[in-house]
Amino acid sequence: MPVAKMSVIELERFLHVEFPQVFRTGGDILIESADGETCLLRQRYSEAMLRPGGTVSGPTLMALADCAMYVVLLSAIGPVGLAVTTNLNINFLRKGAPGQDVLAAAKILKLGKRLAVGEVSLTSGASPEPIAHVTATYSIPTP
Amino acid sequence: MPVAKMSVIELERFLHVEFPQVFRTGGDILIESADGETCLLRQRYSEAMLRPGGTVSGPTLMALADCAMYVVLLSAIGPVGLAVTTNLNINFLRKGAPGQDVLAAAKILKLGKRLAVGEVSLTSGASPEPIAHVTATYSIPTP
Amino acid sequence: MPVAKMSVIELERFLHVEFPQVFRTGGDILIESADGETCLLRQRYSEAMLRPGGTVSGPTLMALADCAMYVVLLSAIGPVGLAVTTNLNINFLRKGAPGQDVLAAAKILKLGKRLAVGEVSLTSGASPEPIAHVTATYSIPTP
Amino acid sequence: MPVAKMSVIELERFLHVEFPQVFRTGGDILIESADGETCLLRQRYSEAMLRPGGTVSGPTLMALADCAMYVVLLSAIGPVGLAVTTNLNINFLRKGAPGQDVLAAAKILKLGKRLAVGEVSLTSGASPEPIAHVTATYSIPTP
Repeated sequence: MPVAKMSVIELERFLHVEFPQVFRTGGDILIESADGETCLLRQRYSEAMLRPGGTVSGPTLMALADCAMYVVLLSAIGPVGLAVTTNLNINFLRKGAPGQDVLAAAKILKLGKRLAVGEVSLTSGASPEPIAHVTATYSIPTP
Repeated sequence: MPVAKMSVIELERFLHVEFPQVFRTGGDILIESADGETCLLRQRYSEAMLRPGGTVSGPTLMALADCAMYVVLLSAIGPVGLAVTTNLNINFLRKGAPGQDVLAAAKILKLGKRLAVGEVSLTSGASPEPIAHVTATYSIPTP
Repeated sequence: MPVAKMSVIELERFLHVEFPQVFRTGGDILIESADGETCLLRQRYSEAMLRPGGTVSGPTLMALADCAMYVVLLSAIGPVGLAVTTNLNINFLRKGAPGQDVLAAAKILKLGKRLAVGEVSLTSGASPEPIAHVTATYSIPTP
Repeated sequence: MPVAKMSVIELERFLHVEFPQVFRTGGDILIESADGETCLLRQRYSEAMLRPGGTVSGPTLMALADCAMYVVLLSAIGPVGLAVTTNLNINFLRKGAPGQDVLAAAKILKLGKRLAVGEVSLTSGASPEPIAHVTATYSIPTP
């Protein structure tokens, strides 16, 4: 049974300091939950996330998935600012609806001493169908 | 609600004819279930699947995952012999135990007209922890 | 021998209209060359591309690589606005130096009727060592 | 300038002992060259490598690419039997011609203390066009 090393409040505080570009107070990305093994992020709809045709852009989804993997990892191992992504693989599946928030549900598949691997399912608004699926690997610095 | 276009018996018959190298009668790979959206394959333990150190080899896992994606796709769209893998991404997570069967649980993430994307979780024996995780894309020939 | 279907000037004009968020006149991303099989993009250094520690952020690299694949594809097939990324895999290799432009050298590995696959090597400033390596697949709409 | 830590003869001797299933004396896979940064492997044509339709099977290509990454890594770091693949991503590009050997040209993109990343281009017979492209990551055990 995983235990979260950081609460949602602690995660937000840490990320506002460490990643002010991404996680701003009152910003677009909210942490809805994080329990040491999974997390759920919500990116509020804004026009900046669209590409022509009114669909959610690829870079928006890649950046959000990368954030979600980082949040679930921090939740599992505590505040380690130097963990870095080593690999990210994304499959784009469906168009995200314009006007809708994007949700990212991340899950740790393996938490090792040096590497953590997880998957992220991205959905749009209330639809359960994933608009993209990501797997990512983080390298954890040795103390 | 997905409906399987082929039963397990029909899948086995088709694969024995189309892929005799892989699916032989009395062979190593068994289809335990397939319902048009998911499938479960079992590869019986044999020494040929090991690499030094007694763990399950990477190529064994990649080949089994590729099979599982093909089986779940056939189950979803019916007997289409010319569907081909276009991309496969695998993360190796843990060592598979020697002496144990390997199980591959595949799930379709998106079934389009031209492309199908799925994920496969590979486990060893009765352990629920995945030993590898795969995402794969198949190209579906247009009629 | 590939022949470019669009010149650099035509590519820039097309992208300023189709992707104004990304390719602005006087913006950060410049097309240095494109010949129907390869292209070279330069993203001018700005603080917005950094993450804590002063290194180039992952999302910056993923977005630039995705752009580079799109530019080389347009250069190969002409102005097709509806081509979409279906898969992108990135390996982060080294830290990009702060204060340096990022360069993306894309190359088409396969140009099919329905799918195009390419690779992108990302470098920082004048160093030849790649800071990240990407493979990506685009789906080409049928006329 | 990289220096090979093992000659082709030393590599073959090591692999015949460590991976007798794959590298047998007089077997299918030959090391043509290895210089500490790149290597070239040849898999001699045999019917066992085909799938229906007479093309080279996906698992054959994935297994050969994994071998090539391991050989180039050994060539760079010396005889380390416990290096393991952590991620492999393959794009299948063209059909390999029946009756032809398959060649795998591997290249190290990054050699770190804990992780090595490389790419492998697979070709069929004398054709220069790649039939598949692979990127892979190996985890290197710490002494």
